[in-house]
Amino acid sequence: MIPTYARALIVGAGSGLSASLARLLAADGLKIGLAARNVEKLAALAAETGAAVHACDASRPAEVEALFARLEPALGGAPDVVIYNASGRLRGSIADLDPDAVARSLMVSAYGGFLVAQAAARRMLPHRHGAILLTGASASVKGFAGSAPFAMGKFGLRGLGQSLARELQPQGIHVAHIVIDGAIRNPDRGGEPADAPDSHLDPDAIARAYRDLLRQDRSAWTSELELRPWVERF
Amino acid sequence: MIPTYARALIVGAGSGLSASLARLLAADGLKIGLAARNVEKLAALAAETGAAVHACDASRPAEVEALFARLEPALGGAPDVVIYNASGRLRGSIADLDPDAVARSLMVSAYGGFLVAQAAARRMLPHRHGAILLTGASASVKGFAGSAPFAMGKFGLRGLGQSLARELQPQGIHVAHIVIDGAIRNPDRGGEPADAPDSHLDPDAIARAYRDLLRQDRSAWTSELELRPWVERF
Amino acid sequence: MIPTYARALIVGAGSGLSASLARLLAADGLKIGLAARNVEKLAALAAETGAAVHACDASRPAEVEALFARLEPALGGAPDVVIYNASGRLRGSIADLDPDAVARSLMVSAYGGFLVAQAAARRMLPHRHGAILLTGASASVKGFAGSAPFAMGKFGLRGLGQSLARELQPQGIHVAHIVIDGAIRNPDRGGEPADAPDSHLDPDAIARAYRDLLRQDRSAWTSELELRPWVERF
Amino acid sequence: MIPTYARALIVGAGSGLSASLARLLAADGLKIGLAARNVEKLAALAAETGAAVHACDASRPAEVEALFARLEPALGGAPDVVIYNASGRLRGSIADLDPDAVARSLMVSAYGGFLVAQAAARRMLPHRHGAILLTGASASVKGFAGSAPFAMGKFGLRGLGQSLARELQPQGIHVAHIVIDGAIRNPDRGGEPADAPDSHLDPDAIARAYRDLLRQDRSAWTSELELRPWVERF
Repeated sequence: MIPTYARALIVGAGSGLSASLARLLAADGLKIGLAARNVEKLAALAAETGAAVHACDASRPAEVEALFARLEPALGGAPDVVIYNASGRLRGSIADLDPDAVARSLMVSAYGGFLVAQAAARRMLPHRHGAILLTGASASVKGFAGSAPFAMGKFGLRGLGQSLARELQPQGIHVAHIVIDGAIRNPDRGGEPADAPDSHLDPDAIARAYRDLLRQDRSAWTSELELRPWVERF
Repeated sequence: MIPTYARALIVGAGSGLSASLARLLAADGLKIGLAARNVEKLAALAAETGAAVHACDASRPAEVEALFARLEPALGGAPDVVIYNASGRLRGSIADLDPDAVARSLMVSAYGGFLVAQAAARRMLPHRHGAILLTGASASVKGFAGSAPFAMGKFGLRGLGQSLARELQPQGIHVAHIVIDGAIRNPDRGGEPADAPDSHLDPDAIARAYRDLLRQDRSAWTSELELRPWVERF
Repeated sequence: MIPTYARALIVGAGSGLSASLARLLAADGLKIGLAARNVEKLAALAAETGAAVHACDASRPAEVEALFARLEPALGGAPDVVIYNASGRLRGSIADLDPDAVARSLMVSAYGGFLVAQAAARRMLPHRHGAILLTGASASVKGFAGSAPFAMGKFGLRGLGQSLARELQPQGIHVAHIVIDGAIRNPDRGGEPADAPDSHLDPDAIARAYRDLLRQDRSAWTSELELRPWVERF
Repeated sequence: MIPTYARALIVGAGSGLSASLARLLAADGLKIGLAARNVEKLAALAAETGAAVHACDASRPAEVEALFARLEPALGGAPDVVIYNASGRLRGSIADLDPDAVARSLMVSAYGGFLVAQAAARRMLPHRHGAILLTGASASVKGFAGSAPFAMGKFGLRGLGQSLARELQPQGIHVAHIVIDGAIRNPDRGGEPADAPDSHLDPDAIARAYRDLLRQDRSAWTSELELRPWVERF
């Protein structure tokens, strides 16, 4: 049985990936909700995709609850696809890192994922239907030097994904963690090198891979997917 | 850039998965080649899909070379999709295993994959284009008690896949290893339990997942994909 | 070169493992410091091992800084072995978990490890000498159903360990993450089943494994060690 | 319970590691057996350690059986420690590799490990006592470009180790796979760079790590151990 989905919520919207996801899923007929801490930047995307938009700091329980409560009328129901894209990237040598910034990073990368997944699961479980997609990074599976906070947060989100896959999939909710192992193409940051075509991940291509997951038959679900440019070293 | 493929060779054909792959890729317009040690069982599938069929013991270098040489005229060129499905499943406690059977199992699971991948790569490299898909199993990532030969072979095939992904992808050849973590539905063996719908992997669903890989943009390739029924313990 | 160590700090003391570590390292001649949120339970162990003891909530930056500042005079210098044993075990289905308890769990399991490692590294780096050992669990490498908070925290601690190993080892500081894959023997909880000898990890045996790490030549350091009872399923 | 061992067989002897193991275990009082394809190079080591030596191609079932049969009288019984160090290192781009050499590499790296482990297990199982140690490499856990045969063989040996650990440990036989992630110091090849002390693994240090495994309490066994120079990138 291939599930069909009607309403998608994307948390941590704003990057190229979230915009690509919003466009692709809207084109497929899903109602779209977008959440970010700063929603001003989302106006054009909302207009283009008909998305409902709400500001939300995903690391605060009350804000996450309010987000779901407010979006449901706009979407015509609880989202049955929830994508967590937020992360707290923070680099620095261990001796130099600011503890408060590290706590903040961990809260955004991992705890926010938990809060959003919990709110999603509570609404999906009665229907035994839904999909929760968590966006990971190279740091999800390998802790790099000078990157302790990001490694903690991204490893933590992966642990959450594994636990939820084992708990929720037998209850009809598809949980997948996607390891994006490379830089995402971003025209605002200069795009990719001219002599290295497709060396950065095209956000539209990533979005299609997410959609491939949403179209999987439940007899053959993927719980972890890696995506990497053809020329990326790994 | 999303590659497009024209000719697919499936080695180790005969199981439900190979038939599903042949049908799906034929419907997409690809020319199909099928290889197995015993090809009598493939007649109906060949008729249905227009596939060219050749007998081949994939663990023998000369037979693999002959396979490619003979299929090319029938396919109108070298295959640009090569899928290795053969495996030498063999179980038994370590004390009881027959060494010759273990050698044979290892040759089929891992060495045959090497020979087929080598023949494929030699033909794909001049065009900097192609896809090599290797079919794995739960045993590819976890060695189970009583399953030493299958673990050796399937781990070995995974090592091959990782090495080839790192070597060939920057040369334009997509290499993916697919971990099929569960039983594949098989009407001949009684199908799946009536009270556990979709608890066995639907071979058509697996085939679609393989096709998803073939349609990936090269900026976002997957080199390892896991597929697992929603209710599978893992 | 095999490093030699003089002063060990064990954070999260109180369990059988911490007591075994304190006794073993004290017998080797190291000065011992013990930290826990509740230090009353540590009086007997401190008397036995001559350890200095201080109360500390390891998830609070100021308390961790104070811990190191206060222990240094008692130990005769900064600890050159720092072991992080604290963890915030919390179970429950995703729908039922209390968000505040989850945040607390994550702070103790992962963030506390960061704070302690940071305080340790700041003192070790000038000497290019030291060892940081992080205690993991089965949940560090596999997220179990009903265990999302513990998986998040323990995966996070493992990510920290990997990042610090890559950053600090080339600066002379050994970083290891130990995966304790099974139950630790605990007479207070009834001990292990009489018909399954050695089915629970002996804390003295774990302590010896930690000491093995401390005695490794720097040309052959281990950064991740798994320990598991002979009869444990995995 | 900490097992005690009396007789060790080292297969694939000749390298620095095997010599270090022979010396260390002989000094501990174990009787030593050494096996290699070419045993002439082992004369000095045999004299030094009192080891019994026999020529053996470990990839041939009959030779492995003969090895065990002949060594038992010399050792005073079947070995209760068996270490497999042989491997078939072979590099080359996929297009250039010679298929026969690849088969040979796979047979030595993986199949020989199976044959030796089988012969060992058959003798250990009646006593529910013994240890089987398999020597891995970086290639055991990561398939590198240009290294398909070695990745196949070393992944295969790791799969064997995992399967045997799950099967044999509950029967009292300790099985461990050691990932040696770096170059081993070798005076014959010029030693390590003068400006990078301890950047190559000291074979004596590796041997001590193997002995640490042999001295583990069975309530806290390690089944996979990684060893890596402090300055190694990973």
